[in-house]
Amino acid sequence: MKLIECIPNFSEGRRPEVIAAITGAISGVEGINLLDVKPDKDHNRVVVTFVGEPESVAEAAFRGAQKAAELIDMQEHRGEHPRLGATDVIPFVPLGATSMEECITIAERVGARIGEELDIPVYLYERAARTPERRNLADVRRGEYELLIKDITRPERKPDFGPAVANLRSGGTVVGARPPLVAFNVNLESTDLKAARAIARKVRESGGGLPAVKALGLMIEEGNHTQISMNLVDFTITGMHTAMEAIANEAAAYGIAISGSEVVGLLPVQALLDSAIHSLKLAGFSADQVLEFRLGGGK
Amino acid sequence: MKLIECIPNFSEGRRPEVIAAITGAISGVEGINLLDVKPDKDHNRVVVTFVGEPESVAEAAFRGAQKAAELIDMQEHRGEHPRLGATDVIPFVPLGATSMEECITIAERVGARIGEELDIPVYLYERAARTPERRNLADVRRGEYELLIKDITRPERKPDFGPAVANLRSGGTVVGARPPLVAFNVNLESTDLKAARAIARKVRESGGGLPAVKALGLMIEEGNHTQISMNLVDFTITGMHTAMEAIANEAAAYGIAISGSEVVGLLPVQALLDSAIHSLKLAGFSADQVLEFRLGGGK
Repeated sequence: MKLIECIPNFSEGRRPEVIAAITGAISGVEGINLLDVKPDKDHNRVVVTFVGEPESVAEAAFRGAQKAAELIDMQEHRGEHPRLGATDVIPFVPLGATSMEECITIAERVGARIGEELDIPVYLYERAARTPERRNLADVRRGEYELLIKDITRPERKPDFGPAVANLRSGGTVVGARPPLVAFNVNLESTDLKAARAIARKVRESGGGLPAVKALGLMIEEGNHTQISMNLVDFTITGMHTAMEAIANEAAAYGIAISGSEVVGLLPVQALLDSAIHSLKLAGFSADQVLEFRLGGGK
Repeated sequence: MKLIECIPNFSEGRRPEVIAAITGAISGVEGINLLDVKPDKDHNRVVVTFVGEPESVAEAAFRGAQKAAELIDMQEHRGEHPRLGATDVIPFVPLGATSMEECITIAERVGARIGEELDIPVYLYERAARTPERRNLADVRRGEYELLIKDITRPERKPDFGPAVANLRSGGTVVGARPPLVAFNVNLESTDLKAARAIARKVRESGGGLPAVKALGLMIEEGNHTQISMNLVDFTITGMHTAMEAIANEAAAYGIAISGSEVVGLLPVQALLDSAIHSLKLAGFSADQVLEFRLGGGK
């Protein structure tokens, strides 16, 4: 069974009936598992997580965007989080045996439908991006809705799908494919925030550290201890075990030990299996050996 | 979804058409995933592995035993492996959220059906055993088919289900419930077989080592290196990481390092997750956080 995770972000975090209508449109599609709905009132935004097979996920993502276009008017939207439109961003994430290529194809199909059927300018981002300038979501979203409706006719703003004219009601939508993200925090036996920040800088990609790792040094639990809070944006490039070992090495230089770690939210099972394989030095291991993974093939 | 693994052993390893008829009877049940069929000619025995929901697994196990009773005549059976009957042993193993109690209930139901409908003496073993003397399969199977048909009327041989008279054609069947078994081998950077055997003795339960661990020290790959070959008979008692760490400690006393490890055959995903949680010192982790594990709940 091929599975894709989809985590669309809609620009509505305050009206529960609108959120319910959007999630209802998504979960009404046969074969969709709605896993999580996280509204934020300050952001005036909701993050929805669902999973299913490619056809179902493509249909559900479109129906969510359709319902958002119907019920959200960006001309009235105010919120703290950057956003380009009513359906702000739709990432497709491969799970299990699904390839990134399949997610890129789904992103293109859903993007095309949103552009053509809903008359919304659509921009492809991350792995689905057609130009390097559109890889980063922050770049695509720069200036937000308010600038997009002014600038849409400029050549560099030409959408990948849909009309190159402002949709005042819906704004624009960013659609793409990316690897699953693992929110992984490592706790330090220390209250030295400076050291934590220095360790985070050393470990993260932007500081010349581990690729595909974002990291911050934080003080948590009311000053009780420090933490390296990470986003592993591609755990197949840098996994949890590698990140933890790098932190252990950097922390050792300060005489600081690791007390434990935590995963925030959801993660794909493979991220944990990779850690087990690494720590057990397992050779010749195949995911086929996992009983539960073989259950899709029978009658 | 509640899942149970069933690994029946049938006393036929030479006639492919008989094996195919038995596995066909099993996989013909709706909802059954036939995962593995391993015939052995010397043993004249086949080990079948299948998985499904409790009702399906109970039905499939019975139909396999029924077909074996139809096609195998123990009066003509010769083979190296100890056996009591045509359907020799049927263990039920809980997977995921399934409890051991549910597997014991299934073992009792299937045992009763085999006894009543097929007129075969049935003995409950392992976690399903009703007396301590029947916990160990080797004890129940002592003397094999040949002794059973003579001794069946003795009080200590009274079956848990079915007639207390010899079934010459089918022999007896042992039915039970047990935790999943993990076949886990740890390779040593050494060719010292004596040291490997000493390490194995220290580590295994029978030597006063780790509970639920069986271990042998072996020379493998034509004398290239030694190995501690283990069966973890209940990984929730002693997991892969604990076994590996114990071997690392014992081996260190001989100045021997671990070069790697391997899993033979299938294992439940939880055995690997436990290792990841252990090595990452993950706190507050719930299996609910694994994306793939949440996919059973939706529509």
